[in-house]
Amino acid sequence: MTEAPLPKETDLPARWKRLVEAIEASDAGAAHDILASATVDDQRRIVSQLNLDRRERLCRLLPVDETADLIENLAEPQAVEMLEEMQADLAADVLEELPADVSGDLLRELNDRSSEAILSEIDDADESMDLRERAGYARDSAGGLMSDQVVSFPQDATVADVLAELGNNAGNYSDDEVQYFYVTDHSMQLTGVLALRNLVLGRRDLCISELMIPSPVCTRVDTELEELQDLFENRNYLAFPVVDENGRLKGIVSRAAVNEALSETQTDDYLKSRGIVGGEELRSMPLIERCSRRLAWLGPNILLNLLAASIIASYEDTLQSVIALAVFLPMVSDMSGCSGNQAGAVTIRELTLGIIQPRDYLRVFLKEVWLGMNNGMVLGFVLGAIAAVWKGSVFLGLVIGGALMLNTIFSVTVGGLVPLLLKRFKVDPALASGPILTTCTDMSGFFLVLSLANLAMTHLV
Amino acid sequence: MTEAPLPKETDLPARWKRLVEAIEASDAGAAHDILASATVDDQRRIVSQLNLDRRERLCRLLPVDETADLIENLAEPQAVEMLEEMQADLAADVLEELPADVSGDLLRELNDRSSEAILSEIDDADESMDLRERAGYARDSAGGLMSDQVVSFPQDATVADVLAELGNNAGNYSDDEVQYFYVTDHSMQLTGVLALRNLVLGRRDLCISELMIPSPVCTRVDTELEELQDLFENRNYLAFPVVDENGRLKGIVSRAAVNEALSETQTDDYLKSRGIVGGEELRSMPLIERCSRRLAWLGPNILLNLLAASIIASYEDTLQSVIALAVFLPMVSDMSGCSGNQAGAVTIRELTLGIIQPRDYLRVFLKEVWLGMNNGMVLGFVLGAIAAVWKGSVFLGLVIGGALMLNTIFSVTVGGLVPLLLKRFKVDPALASGPILTTCTDMSGFFLVLSLANLAMTHLV
Repeated sequence: MTEAPLPKETDLPARWKRLVEAIEASDAGAAHDILASATVDDQRRIVSQLNLDRRERLCRLLPVDETADLIENLAEPQAVEMLEEMQADLAADVLEELPADVSGDLLRELNDRSSEAILSEIDDADESMDLRERAGYARDSAGGLMSDQVVSFPQDATVADVLAELGNNAGNYSDDEVQYFYVTDHSMQLTGVLALRNLVLGRRDLCISELMIPSPVCTRVDTELEELQDLFENRNYLAFPVVDENGRLKGIVSRAAVNEALSETQTDDYLKSRGIVGGEELRSMPLIERCSRRLAWLGPNILLNLLAASIIASYEDTLQSVIALAVFLPMVSDMSGCSGNQAGAVTIRELTLGIIQPRDYLRVFLKEVWLGMNNGMVLGFVLGAIAAVWKGSVFLGLVIGGALMLNTIFSVTVGGLVPLLLKRFKVDPALASGPILTTCTDMSGFFLVLSLANLAMTHLV
Repeated sequence: MTEAPLPKETDLPARWKRLVEAIEASDAGAAHDILASATVDDQRRIVSQLNLDRRERLCRLLPVDETADLIENLAEPQAVEMLEEMQADLAADVLEELPADVSGDLLRELNDRSSEAILSEIDDADESMDLRERAGYARDSAGGLMSDQVVSFPQDATVADVLAELGNNAGNYSDDEVQYFYVTDHSMQLTGVLALRNLVLGRRDLCISELMIPSPVCTRVDTELEELQDLFENRNYLAFPVVDENGRLKGIVSRAAVNEALSETQTDDYLKSRGIVGGEELRSMPLIERCSRRLAWLGPNILLNLLAASIIASYEDTLQSVIALAVFLPMVSDMSGCSGNQAGAVTIRELTLGIIQPRDYLRVFLKEVWLGMNNGMVLGFVLGAIAAVWKGSVFLGLVIGGALMLNTIFSVTVGGLVPLLLKRFKVDPALASGPILTTCTDMSGFFLVLSLANLAMTHLV
């Protein structure tokens, strides 16, 4: 906490220009100074504006530990992008410098070709195996989220022993956030957990096995995120130990790591719901990759749209007779789509909060159908009145207003239920809710407007 | 960690029925047992399915500390809902039982009438003033996020003094997560921070002022969330002390609290982007409130939709002559809307990651315009070909494909830029991006299809 205060205003273009000059002049000291004096945000923005060649040269220029620091400060998709662009030998050196959980995360996100090439460049066989093991755990499992910075003591040590060890070898521990110690038996199996607080507050002659919490709740490397969330929600701990299939201590998974993973899940959900699939997109990625990933989501959407359009096509005669309907067709489907999206968002939120479960469809149906009738009447009346006045036809108003009313009831009900059904059938609601809902409400909207118009045709023409 | 393992399968309806019976029979013991054996999720779901009257009776039945435990386990919007429904005197008792930061948060979310009524029912004048002060801090400020569970020592104490105090009065500290101690002078002004680790590892005869980090970075009660995020991103600490305008220590704000607040901001953004405004909606809320809040967002949407529809209305003659256009109008506007949403999501994400800033519009424009040309050509070709084959008219294909191509370029560019512009003009991008973008792409889509058709009219009829 002795650093100079961060500068409030940052002159980014000037900083970027100086960095480019330092790279061109191969001036490692200047490059270091420019980056070290930049905030994390500025580092991210500067890097995103360097071209491929300059990034590579910058990484070769800096000492490997500084490159590792820089990589650690970048947003994860940026860091992955840079490692994939780097020569494998340099990337391997960088990964060896990073904390094990960070390099595990990055390796898992790299494409297979890059990660294989990098792993084969790591000289230390143990380190390479550790990294391979870490990268093998699922991203959102205890193994993928754990930190291996865990301090353990044998169960027959005394409080005085442990305090003396900590006092004498402070240097060994000062990098860790030491809050809990783990207690193991001779075969490294976990037997207890000892809070630093209890150690400090404990009588000095006690054996730590008397102060420890025995048979602690622990997680296995393959425990999934949802289960971890439940664990932390139901128990007020900061971390749980993680053991392998043989009960041997492998690391700890912290509340902070679980919360971060949950927040990333939310971000992923948001991005997927807006049609960004196959991982995050950064504008520094190659154009062709950005295009093809966006098209991968838009393609199926064309088909769904065609489905909806075919309804209009089958009523062309009706439309031909009352062309004013064409003005209101998109309005009815769009307004209903919005109503359905609201209901879907409430369902997804209530699922996240644990207030409803996928099987609670009856409750959701009843709640939404009432709301749909209410809002449907209000919106239907408003749009119907507008249509009647605008086009001077009460019957047109009745058709449009009636269609919007019925379609609102339909779309809020479907909107509320679709995420439940998708969740039940193990399809990702964030990804599929939007397109499915839009297609349903478009089809029903077009159908309602045009078939009601057909019924009232004699009064409309 | 000595509790029985949580039951894996929960029979919720049975549990709910037993709770209702306990409430009807005024059996506090049974009600307690049922709730105590339920997971947090089950408690949330059971409560959401109790009606108003039973909730009130449950709260009166349970001892006030158990009611407080229950309220603390609920999702925040549920807890707020319950407090608003409760009699003010009971709500005041419950708030007095809760940790200061929790009751401060809840008070801030209550409507003014309820919070005034509850505060006036709190007997202890100091407590009432404390709560009023806390509720007065902005939700996403250091004051609103801080915990007041902070342990401080005078700067002239020695390591041995502090360890002895901790050892002798363990009971006073055992509820806190003691990791950092704060060091103050005689007027309670903050002079330093002492990590528990450094205390434990320190020589026993040293004065804590020699081990402490002097003049620590601290935040003021009015420091905003964005600034707190920067602080934690640039410095690897778990917490910062919070002082008032006179430098007096008021509490600590932790990394976890800041992360949680950020994650809530993301959730709010997601809900707003789907049209849930004015706070979260739970299906247990009164129908009339749910309806009116959803309508508050749908209302302005009707106006925006009318704007778009007026384009179609002004081309009714064109449409009348080539009725097939009506089939493709919604497709062109919907597909472009999707493309624009993708670009908008990438911008909002890059803003969150700190990779771009609101003034980087030129960079975003250039990146998106290229992508737009690329994807526009692909999508335009596909939809144009479909239109040409389906309706047997090459010229119709050219009109539809050309319109989709041009409108894709327009919509990804606008979609990428709208969040930047909104952010620059201090409008919430999550709330306004969607409707503004949809209106723009609808209008331009309708205009492009119909005006191109007008130009090619002789070949279309």
